[in-house]
Amino acid sequence: MKFVKELIGKEVLNKDAFVVGKVSDIEFNPDTQLIESLILKKGSISETLNISKGENVIPFDLIRSIGDKIILKDTFENE
Amino acid sequence: MKFVKELIGKEVLNKDAFVVGKVSDIEFNPDTQLIESLILKKGSISETLNISKGENVIPFDLIRSIGDKIILKDTFENE
Repeated sequence: MKFVKELIGKEVLNKDAFVVGKVSDIEFNPDTQLIESLILKKGSISETLNISKGENVIPFDLIRSIGDKIILKDTFENE
Repeated sequence: MKFVKELIGKEVLNKDAFVVGKVSDIEFNPDTQLIESLILKKGSISETLNISKGENVIPFDLIRSIGDKIILKDTFENE
């Protein structure tokens, strides 16, 4: 079991160990109770200033592991 | 679709319209991607002071509706 608050703010890495962004929210379907995706903020000075519009949506099944960081599977290509 | 950040901090009401607590976290199973339960903090001055130990775990399928508040089904008995 995990708690969503553990995920919020975690850095997300692609398979090449580059930071894709940080988890800012998690999307779910209240009917199925399934978690659908992570909403990422791309890390930058604009994020700190809270003016960033850059967001990525990562389908939850692209996650390989959740630990101190979140690592994605091979299939995710950073933009 | 809903976002977990919408749920955090929302008041949870039982069928008799009494406040059971506020959502402080959400528990999920990373293998099945299923949301399992809401973690509630019972509202009180101790919550504000962040010294509250009072927590309720509400299975997600006890939720009847999620709107401005969260309303539980008949089966939930407040302690």
